[in-house]
Formats: sequence, C-alpha cells, structure tokens
Amino acid sequence: MATIAYEGTHYVGWETQSNGLAVQEVIEEALATLCRHPVPIEGSGRTDAGVHAWGQVASFGFDRPMTLDKLQLALNGMTPPDVGIRSVREVHPEFHARFSATSKRYRYTILNERAPRPLVRHHVHHDPRPIDLAAMQAAAARLEGTHDFRAFAREGHRRDDGVRTVTSVDVRREDGMLTLDVTGTGFLYNMVRIITGTLFEVGLGRRSVEEVAALLETTDRRRAGFTAPAHGLMLMEVHYPEHLLSPPEA
Amino acid sequence: MATIAYEGTHYVGWETQSNGLAVQEVIEEALATLCRHPVPIEGSGRTDAGVHAWGQVASFGFDRPMTLDKLQLALNGMTPPDVGIRSVREVHPEFHARFSATSKRYRYTILNERAPRPLVRHHVHHDPRPIDLAAMQAAAARLEGTHDFRAFAREGHRRDDGVRTVTSVDVRREDGMLTLDVTGTGFLYNMVRIITGTLFEVGLGRRSVEEVAALLETTDRRRAGFTAPAHGLMLMEVHYPEHLLSPPEA
Repeated sequence: MATIAYEGTHYVGWETQSNGLAVQEVIEEALATLCRHPVPIEGSGRTDAGVHAWGQVASFGFDRPMTLDKLQLALNGMTPPDVGIRSVREVHPEFHARFSATSKRYRYTILNERAPRPLVRHHVHHDPRPIDLAAMQAAAARLEGTHDFRAFAREGHRRDDGVRTVTSVDVRREDGMLTLDVTGTGFLYNMVRIITGTLFEVGLGRRSVEEVAALLETTDRRRAGFTAPAHGLMLMEVHYPEHLLSPPEA
Repeated sequence: MATIAYEGTHYVGWETQSNGLAVQEVIEEALATLCRHPVPIEGSGRTDAGVHAWGQVASFGFDRPMTLDKLQLALNGMTPPDVGIRSVREVHPEFHARFSATSKRYRYTILNERAPRPLVRHHVHHDPRPIDLAAMQAAAARLEGTHDFRAFAREGHRRDDGVRTVTSVDVRREDGMLTLDVTGTGFLYNMVRIITGTLFEVGLGRRSVEEVAALLETTDRRRAGFTAPAHGLMLMEVHYPEHLLSPPEA
C-alpha cells in the first residue's frame, strides 16, 4: 500500500481515463517498469481533474525482492515531480484501498482576502468577498449526520442512493485562509465542492442556515449552491481499520 | 509604494534584463497602461532568476485620479497570476524602495524528509539527508554580526567591499521543513544561498562550526559551501524607517 500526494493541476484526475493522463497511470507505469509486468493498482477512490491529494491511498501486489524503502525511493525517482510517494507499507492481504476505507477527509481552501497569493494559486481558490464565518459554521453543522445528499451531487450522478454519512464539517478562518474540512464515510460526485459552494453562499448572506438544512429534503441539485472550482480541493486522508494496516503476523 | 509577492519560477528575476521576462517589467507594463505613459519603478533590490518574494517592495510615482484600493485591484487584474500586489500605499516623498531600506529578511526552505511534497516543489528545495540541527544553529550564530562576507559571495561580485551586517540567522526545523531566516542590512550576490549551502554542510557533518567562523577570515569563495538552488529562496520582507512609510501630513 502506498500513500500518495499529488498536484492534480495537470492530470485528468486520479483514475485512468481516455481523455488524458491520470495519476494512477504514472504510478502503474513506474511499477510495471520495476516489476517487468503490468501491476494494476486500486486507489481509495477517484478525484476530479485538477483536484489534489495529500493522502491518496493505493493498494497493489508487489513481487520483487526489494525493501519498502528502496521501493519508495524508486517510485519517487520514476514518477514526475508533481506526484510524491509519501510512504509504502506492507498491509494485511485483505486490505483494499477502496473497499476497506471507512471514511475520508477532504479539505477545501479559499483565500478570503483582497490580494492574491501567487505561491498557492494552484491549490487555493481565491474569493475576497467578506464572509460571515459563524453563519457558515452553523450551516455546516446542519449537514453533519446521515442524510440523503442528492441535492449536493452533480446532476447525472446515479440518483437511486444518495444517503451518506458526514461525520464532520469543520469550517475555520486563519490568516486570511478559509478551510472547510469535510469528513464522511462516503461522498457523492462533486459533493464536497457543492457543499463548499453552498456554505460559501451562506457566508455571503445569500442563503440562510435554515435553507441549507431544508435543501437536504429537496434532493434537488438545482436548489443548492455553486460547485466550487476543483483546484481548491484536496483529499487529505483516508481512514482504515487498524488491523488491516499491518500484515497478519506483525 | 507597493508590496509584491511573486513566484519567480518563470522570470529572469526581479530586475529587467535582456534575456527574458522580469517581474519588474510586468508591473511597469500594467502601470504604463493605467497611466498612458511609462512609469519606471524602483525595487528594493534584485532577486535572482527563480527566487520568489512574499514582500518585495517597489516605489513609483502615480498621477491618475484613482484610489489606492482601485489601483491595487487594477494592478492585480493586469498582472499575471504568478505576481500578486499585496498592498499599495502612499509614502513620504523621500521614500525610495532601494535607498530607504534599512534591512531585509530572506528565507530559505529545505524539505528535510524522505518523501517529496509535490505541492510545494516550486518553492522548497528537497534534501532528505539527516542533519544535525544544533550544529547548524551554532554555526549560524557565528555568522551574525558585521563581517567581511566575501567568502559567501559569488565569484565575479565586485571584491572591494564585502563588509555587511547580518543581524540574525535563525535556523529551525518543524514538521520536516528546515527554514533559515537571514536578516541583514545588506547582502552580497548569492550570499543567502551560499550561507545556506555552507550551513547545510555543517548539518551534514562535513564541516565544523569552527570552520565556518574561520571561513569569514579567508574571504575565499572557493572554501565556502555550495550555492543552494534558487527555488528554495524567498524575499520575505524589507524594513524601512517608520516615518517614511506615510505621507508627511499624515
């Protein structure tokens, strides 16, 4: 299993697609070179084009006589500089990056002051409009829990099952940066970006806290807020049951 | 006067040169468009190609009927996304970005852990070798004060006057990031990058603390350490006498 950071700017996303280069591909290519045969990898889930990761997780089989340290070094040497293998570990044979995941945390970051900051422009969305933080926090609390989140999913997402559990939506503002940490057991397509856009509209005074709670009932995407741009979103971490994170004998 | 942040990656540096685009040029071009005549600006000093700034300062005359807020917005709208105008203020007529500066602070950042971090790769130098922080700090302290720093200046720099005052060299390590904050009243060419390279060699155990102190006596560049790469360096702030930072009547 590997924990992977990447800048998504130049990728079509995590998952291999026909319309451009995916992060998954560059890692599979490096593994195939090392192993001299194809090594399919399984990520914890897809990320959209332009979305970044600090803690994406991927599982794969590896059959070369090589220490984990060497494997990490080799992969970092073979992948492009916008992809970094943060760690490699041996896990339980039943570990599966997608199916074993119990929850994930995403972070959306908005630079909420007048002046742009060139050095973070590729991973922070800039919106200088003054916001009411307390209102955003109150609305965020209304989204926590198990709800039908279809109002917060991109139209076209399969509409039969929209029930997901969001364990926390933590909104903070520090040094001009507004961060929304959304943790949940599962997410619909574009869900964190639509939650962010909707809560930001509350912050702007365009929607009330009550309205956001009521939105869940409607299951109607058209009533929710805008989809915040991809480049402000980052997959921070994926959580797994402790016993799957080590080989059984350990 | 404007305070300017920029990512230096795609520029030949701050100062206009014949071999490519300089940050100074893109700001002068925006001002010329606004004023409909050339507006020469004066920076606090040059930065090398690839070096970044959080607090570069530039002074210029401005003769349009426009509020400072509007001027800042207009400049941010007209300059590319890797340049940000953090603030614009009216200053004393005697203010001059270069000649009025009393000191400057530069920061060099090294990611000092095994795995790369893709999101900061353009402004943090990566070197995973284990270092002795206490030794670096002890050697750093020996550089503080007024010395002939010619051993820490790129060869070819005019060699007649190498005396400069470094008020502090602060070395820290936090969360895998090694930062060197160097504050001084003046700097020779490449001085912060050579100080960084030399102190890093102390951290690696390749040089003793005593050797660094002795280096100052030699004034011989060839005896100092390597020049740390440009992309890890950032001009953090430029200091001015308080009374020059406002118009006289204020």
